[in-house]
Amino acid sequence: MYTVEIKVMPLKELLDPQGKAVMGGLENLGLKGVEDVRIGKNITLKVNAESPEKALAIAEEASRKLLSNQVMEYFELRVL
Amino acid sequence: MYTVEIKVMPLKELLDPQGKAVMGGLENLGLKGVEDVRIGKNITLKVNAESPEKALAIAEEASRKLLSNQVMEYFELRVL
Repeated sequence: MYTVEIKVMPLKELLDPQGKAVMGGLENLGLKGVEDVRIGKNITLKVNAESPEKALAIAEEASRKLLSNQVMEYFELRVL
Repeated sequence: MYTVEIKVMPLKELLDPQGKAVMGGLENLGLKGVEDVRIGKNITLKVNAESPEKALAIAEEASRKLLSNQVMEYFELRVL
């Protein structure tokens, strides 16, 4: 059993309105120093596979087909 | 300028209904091998601070005060 962590983030070229809203919230709280906020998803999968490579392949397929919208997001995978 | 990555995940003791829904979606797609899915947030902050320690302290305060709900979630910080 392998744990694969998937990070799904808005493409760097795109605005991130949720991040901008959080940034406003931090300013309202009086928190200084934060210059940019970007918000995405963090997904962990427990995958039953024979090898880390196979677990990654399954996670990659899940990310492509269901977990990310590649028009607006990119994803990164990591076996923990 | 430091980049701090914040992972906000549902507490391990709690059910994650969003994760369960995605798990159903993966089964419907015919993807085999995934035994558990948990979904949280991934937030990156660009922090203007004098040292990585100060950047982490600012991100920790942001996480505690705004970015996570500690009744249901835990967070982990990492300077990239």
